[in-house]
Amino acid sequence: MAAFHTLRWIDDSLELLDQRLLPDHCTYPRFDSAAAVAAAIRDLVVRGAPAIGCAAAYGIALEARRLRHESQAGFDEGMHQAFAVLGNSRPTAVNLHWALARMRERLQASSGSGNADRAVTLLDAAQRIAAEDVRINRALGAHGAALLPDVARVMTHCNAGALATAGHGTALGVVRSAALAGKKMEVIANETRPFLQGARLTVWELQQDGIPVTLIVDSAAGYVMGARHIDAVIVGADRVAANGDVANKIGTYMMAVLAKRHAIPFYVACPLSTIDLTMPSGGDIPIEERDSGEVAGYRDLRWAPLGAHIANPVFDVTPAELVTALITEKGVVQAPGRTTIQQLFN
Amino acid sequence: MAAFHTLRWIDDSLELLDQRLLPDHCTYPRFDSAAAVAAAIRDLVVRGAPAIGCAAAYGIALEARRLRHESQAGFDEGMHQAFAVLGNSRPTAVNLHWALARMRERLQASSGSGNADRAVTLLDAAQRIAAEDVRINRALGAHGAALLPDVARVMTHCNAGALATAGHGTALGVVRSAALAGKKMEVIANETRPFLQGARLTVWELQQDGIPVTLIVDSAAGYVMGARHIDAVIVGADRVAANGDVANKIGTYMMAVLAKRHAIPFYVACPLSTIDLTMPSGGDIPIEERDSGEVAGYRDLRWAPLGAHIANPVFDVTPAELVTALITEKGVVQAPGRTTIQQLFN
Repeated sequence: MAAFHTLRWIDDSLELLDQRLLPDHCTYPRFDSAAAVAAAIRDLVVRGAPAIGCAAAYGIALEARRLRHESQAGFDEGMHQAFAVLGNSRPTAVNLHWALARMRERLQASSGSGNADRAVTLLDAAQRIAAEDVRINRALGAHGAALLPDVARVMTHCNAGALATAGHGTALGVVRSAALAGKKMEVIANETRPFLQGARLTVWELQQDGIPVTLIVDSAAGYVMGARHIDAVIVGADRVAANGDVANKIGTYMMAVLAKRHAIPFYVACPLSTIDLTMPSGGDIPIEERDSGEVAGYRDLRWAPLGAHIANPVFDVTPAELVTALITEKGVVQAPGRTTIQQLFN
Repeated sequence: MAAFHTLRWIDDSLELLDQRLLPDHCTYPRFDSAAAVAAAIRDLVVRGAPAIGCAAAYGIALEARRLRHESQAGFDEGMHQAFAVLGNSRPTAVNLHWALARMRERLQASSGSGNADRAVTLLDAAQRIAAEDVRINRALGAHGAALLPDVARVMTHCNAGALATAGHGTALGVVRSAALAGKKMEVIANETRPFLQGARLTVWELQQDGIPVTLIVDSAAGYVMGARHIDAVIVGADRVAANGDVANKIGTYMMAVLAKRHAIPFYVACPLSTIDLTMPSGGDIPIEERDSGEVAGYRDLRWAPLGAHIANPVFDVTPAELVTALITEKGVVQAPGRTTIQQLFN
């Protein structure tokens, strides 16, 4: 288990580790409503597909608690708005919708109870989603660890670690499980512009666990694949289409193309809740475009000239043909495609 | 001609546009010795292979002027040291050694003259190198422009513009020549971490000329190649080996691999002085590793955790097989290789 919590429930509130401030500050602002959680998701206080799903579930629980003494009509209308604001907070990661769908089921199943009881039910549901996420990550971590040699150097992009989940992590969960199993692990972390999840989060997270990590700029990944032995590239995912195409942090596609050229296995580690069977292929997945200020500089420092025209797509799609295997809690899917992915759900 | 000078000779001194401060400040610090110019090259006040060559030539001229009243032994020893300090300022760009070799020839050819006369001769030689660089860039620009359609979108990496040369530029020289010839040009500029030459220099330089440019993070290049029509990727070079392998800014190799996958022509624009016939292949070219602080943050802002282990290779090698053509002042070399490159020099 990582030495920190990404999300925690304290004093009837949700506390989120503010990932915008890492690694400089490790602070836990509190959130008490669905709208506040939605803003935290949109503003990247919390990020990473599974963590976003957990946060959204807690957002529903918070809102039910907040509205528990309202009239039935007020409660119903407020909950309707809560699902809408959370559902619209970010477009690409599907775990958000998965978690909200599960919370909606619980809400509907509890329609015979009083609102206060329903709020308790929804908090229980959110806590189950978070606890289950950690168990799932440990399971997929064990499956992934078995793919790695006893001494392994792994490249990763963005942060698919404990910070991107309720704990343990997906891509870094594989690394963590391998290290816990006694394998000698080393990680190459791409810095992951523009939000620098690799430089700020992956490096910090691995430092907490004492796993050796080397930071490089994103554009050095190809050079490093040629200059040093890399056993695997392992990334997380924001959404996997039914055919195995993978939407993940911008740059993932380039890493997959380069990995193929260098004959390095390219693994995508994700829970089944990241797989969206309603999405036939990756071309259908909405790609979020974020504010140009993220590219113009970082924090208060701006380096692009005034008036610069900027494009900031923050995800890309890696075609299934470039994915060596999906690593899930149900096992490893080699050469993922429509049939093998469907079998995961049978 | 661009609306600024990268290097200029004023009041018996060399002034260099300080590229570390662009786009915020456009200042011209003065340099009066070979050691000061070498420090400016090492510290990236001036960068870009042809500009480094010009600056080094001026450094030799400055030193000869500074030592012109010394004894013969003092002059000879000082000049010897000047060549050494400039030659060691940066390892990858070969234009530095090319320019120094040419200056050494002029120094040796003038050995019958007095030191003051030799200083005048060397200044003349440096000014010829700079003037010739602009002429060369215009010639290669015209050759390259002919490769582009009348409406063209070009992706570039780093800055191979007027700022990287004595004027006009190599990769951006092609863009500039095409625009001057009436073609409707648009540029996609990769930001080029860690030193952000794309974000800070290429965007600024093209803004000066009114050429539309869109800035993206380096890791978005693959996505943009798939999502938008790109007519060509054009980059400069720091050194081209005899077999056509190209050393250039870190990330160039990745752009070449992606361009091939997307069937986009990948052009390398460079003067013959960038081609190093003594270097059999790219694997022999020294790759500079710079200070980790460049990756840990930018300017005074640091975002990597304290204690982070960082690798900072600042060049990579693109194998000739990925280069569609070299664009030189002597014409375009399609599918460059040992034979076609040798023919350029015959």
